[in-house]
Amino acid sequence: MTRPAGGGSPRIGILGAGQLGLMLAQAARNLDIGCRFYAESVDVPGAAMGEVISGSLDDEARLARFADGLDVVTYEWENVPVTAARQIADSVPVLPPVRALEVSGDRLAEKRFFAGLGEPTAGFMPVDTRRELDDAIAGLGFPAILKTRRLGYDGKGQAVLRRPEDLDTAWHAIGGSPLILEERVSFDRELSVIGVRGADGRMACYPPIENEHRAGILRVSTGPAPGLSGETIASAARCVTRALEALDYVGVLAIELFDVGGRLVVNEMAPRVHNSGHLTIEGAVTSQFENHVRAILGLPLGDAGIRGFACMVNIIGDLPQVGDVLAIPGAHLHLYGKPPRRDRKLGHVTVCAGTLAEVGDLRRRVEAGNFNHLPEGAGSRHE
Amino acid sequence: MTRPAGGGSPRIGILGAGQLGLMLAQAARNLDIGCRFYAESVDVPGAAMGEVISGSLDDEARLARFADGLDVVTYEWENVPVTAARQIADSVPVLPPVRALEVSGDRLAEKRFFAGLGEPTAGFMPVDTRRELDDAIAGLGFPAILKTRRLGYDGKGQAVLRRPEDLDTAWHAIGGSPLILEERVSFDRELSVIGVRGADGRMACYPPIENEHRAGILRVSTGPAPGLSGETIASAARCVTRALEALDYVGVLAIELFDVGGRLVVNEMAPRVHNSGHLTIEGAVTSQFENHVRAILGLPLGDAGIRGFACMVNIIGDLPQVGDVLAIPGAHLHLYGKPPRRDRKLGHVTVCAGTLAEVGDLRRRVEAGNFNHLPEGAGSRHE
Repeated sequence: MTRPAGGGSPRIGILGAGQLGLMLAQAARNLDIGCRFYAESVDVPGAAMGEVISGSLDDEARLARFADGLDVVTYEWENVPVTAARQIADSVPVLPPVRALEVSGDRLAEKRFFAGLGEPTAGFMPVDTRRELDDAIAGLGFPAILKTRRLGYDGKGQAVLRRPEDLDTAWHAIGGSPLILEERVSFDRELSVIGVRGADGRMACYPPIENEHRAGILRVSTGPAPGLSGETIASAARCVTRALEALDYVGVLAIELFDVGGRLVVNEMAPRVHNSGHLTIEGAVTSQFENHVRAILGLPLGDAGIRGFACMVNIIGDLPQVGDVLAIPGAHLHLYGKPPRRDRKLGHVTVCAGTLAEVGDLRRRVEAGNFNHLPEGAGSRHE
Repeated sequence: MTRPAGGGSPRIGILGAGQLGLMLAQAARNLDIGCRFYAESVDVPGAAMGEVISGSLDDEARLARFADGLDVVTYEWENVPVTAARQIADSVPVLPPVRALEVSGDRLAEKRFFAGLGEPTAGFMPVDTRRELDDAIAGLGFPAILKTRRLGYDGKGQAVLRRPEDLDTAWHAIGGSPLILEERVSFDRELSVIGVRGADGRMACYPPIENEHRAGILRVSTGPAPGLSGETIASAARCVTRALEALDYVGVLAIELFDVGGRLVVNEMAPRVHNSGHLTIEGAVTSQFENHVRAILGLPLGDAGIRGFACMVNIIGDLPQVGDVLAIPGAHLHLYGKPPRRDRKLGHVTVCAGTLAEVGDLRRRVEAGNFNHLPEGAGSRHE
C-alpha cells in the first residue's frame, strides 16, 4: 500500500447521508475505508465523515459523478428509486442487491415475498380501486389497515379501518395510488431480527430485539428481547436467513416482526442497517454497521454475539443536556449533528448491563431525561 | 441549538494529528463535537476526522489561527514545546495543564515530581558534565542508564552503562545536552495505569494493564494485567490519583510502572491518552479517548470499569491482510491510514474475552498474522 495517510480515495458510496450513513462511515473508518455520500443537501450528518455529493436521485450526471471510482455503493434508505440503483449498478456493484429494494419498496411485493418463503404475514389484499377496497374488507374484516404500497414510513400513508364508515374517509385520504389492505394483527409486542450475509454466502444473526413505538416512531429498543424462548430465537433466525438467501443478499437486513403469543408474524423488512440495531455498537461483539461494511467489501463477517443486555433510547425532537446524559453510569451518547425538529431522530443513548433488571434501571434513568417526546394526543400504536 | 447539521465549527483543538488524535476525534464525533488538528504535515491520520492546520510549533501566527474560536486545546504528544502551549493558553484553555508538559518533558523534573509525591522511582542523578557522570555512577553503581532529559522516546537518546569503559562511549554519543543517570531496575514486568480527572476534580482509573515491549516499542498490552493483587491495583490507583491531584490535572494521564515483586516503581508518565489504553475502546465501559474528551470539555466522566479481559496487539511496520485479521472471531481492527514504514505503528487489533485463557488464545491467533515485527537483532528490553 503506497497511498497517502489520512484516508485515500473513498471506496464506499452511500445513497443517503443521515445517521445510518454516518454510523456506517464511522465503522468503515476503523478499517481505514473512506465513504462518499449522495444526498439532497450537503447539510447532513454524513458530512462529518466524508464528501457529500448533493443531487436528486433522478440526476443521472450527478449520480455518475458520485459513483465514479468507488468499489461498491450501498444505501441507508429503502425508498431509493430502483432506476437510480440500476443506473449505478451498471458501473459499480450495488449492495444489498437492487432486488431487495424492489421487494421492500412495495408493500404488496414484500408481503408476497414472505408468504412465498412460508413466513407468516398479516392477511393482505391489493387495492387499486374503491370497489376493490369493498371486496378486500369483505375478505379480511375489521379492523384492517389501508396503506399506500410505496413510500410510507413512520405511520404516514396509512389509515385504520374500524367500521364501514371509515372506508370513504380512508379512500378520500390516500385512494388513487396503489394500495394494500392489511389485516390488523393483535400482537403482544414488536420485535426485530437483524441478519447479515457476506459475499461468500456466510450469515450471522443478532438475537431478536424488542421495540417500543409511540406515535409511529421507534422510541426504545432492548436487546436481546426479554423472555425469548429458544423457539422464538430460532424462528426469527430462520425468517431472516430465508430472506437473505432468497434475495442472494449481501449486507445487513432487518425484519420487523409481531410476537403473537410466541408466534412470529412478519411486519416488514428494511434492506439496510436499522434503528433497532444501534444497540449493537456497544451491545454486540461486532456492530451492525461494521458487519454491513465487512459484507459489502467482501470481508469476513464479525461475531454477532452479544455482550449482555443493552437498551437504546432514541433522542427525538429536542436535544438533551449532554452533561445530564453522560452523568448516567455507562451511558453511551450518540448525537447525529442534526438541528432539532419535532419528531426528528437527533441521537440515541445506549446503556448496557449484565442483567435485564440492571439495564431496566439504567433505561429509566435515561428516560427521566425526558428527551424522548410523545407528541400531545399521539396514539400508542405502530403499524 | 441552531447550528447546522453535519458538524458546526470545531470545538476541540489537538496538537498533533497521529493515531491518538484520530481516536480522540472519533470519540468526540459521537458527542457531535468536531476537532481541528495542528501538525507538521496535512498528510496525517487526523485528516480523516477534521481540518489539519500545518505548521511548526514555533510559528506563532499559525498557532493563533489554529486556536481561533476553539473551546479547548489538548495535545496527543508530550513533547509539545511549553512555549507553544503557553502561547495558546493565553487565548484558549490548554488541558491537560501546561505544568504536566513541563514535568513530563524533562526526565529529571519527572523523577523529582514522583519522588516528591512519595512514589518510588529508580534512583537518579542529574548529569550535565563528564565529571558529573563519574560522580553519578559512583553513587548509583552499574548497571545504569544514561538518558537525555528531553525528547527521548522509543529507546532513543539512551545508553546502558554496564562497566567503566561504557562511560566514554555513552558520553560521546549523547553528552553535552542535559542528561540524567538512572539506576537500572530489575523488574518482573511492565505495567501502565491510566487515570482521568474531570474539571470538577472527580477521578476515574482503569485497572492496571500489562505491557510487552520489544526493541523499545510497545507490542502487546493486556488489560486488566494478569494476576493483579488488590494491593497492586490500589498502589497503581494511588499513584495516578496523587499525580492527577498534584498537577491539578484535567484529562487522561498514563503512568508506566515497573512491577518489582509486587512493588510498583514509576518509570515515566505520559500526559495524554496512551497506546496501552487502546484496549479500553472495546474492553472498558468508557474508552480512554471518550473520557479525555469528556474531561477537557467539563463533562461528567464515564465509567472506567472493564468488560472482561482485553488484549491489544500493535500493527508495526507492515499492514496485515485485512481479511485474515477480520476472520479471527471478535477481532477489532483499527487502521490509522499511515503508509507502512519500519517500526511505525500502523494500527492495532483488540480481542476481548471473559477469561484470560480465552483472550490468550485469541491473542495467539492475532499474533500468528505476523504483523508485529521484531527487527533483526533487536533487544528485548524497554526503558
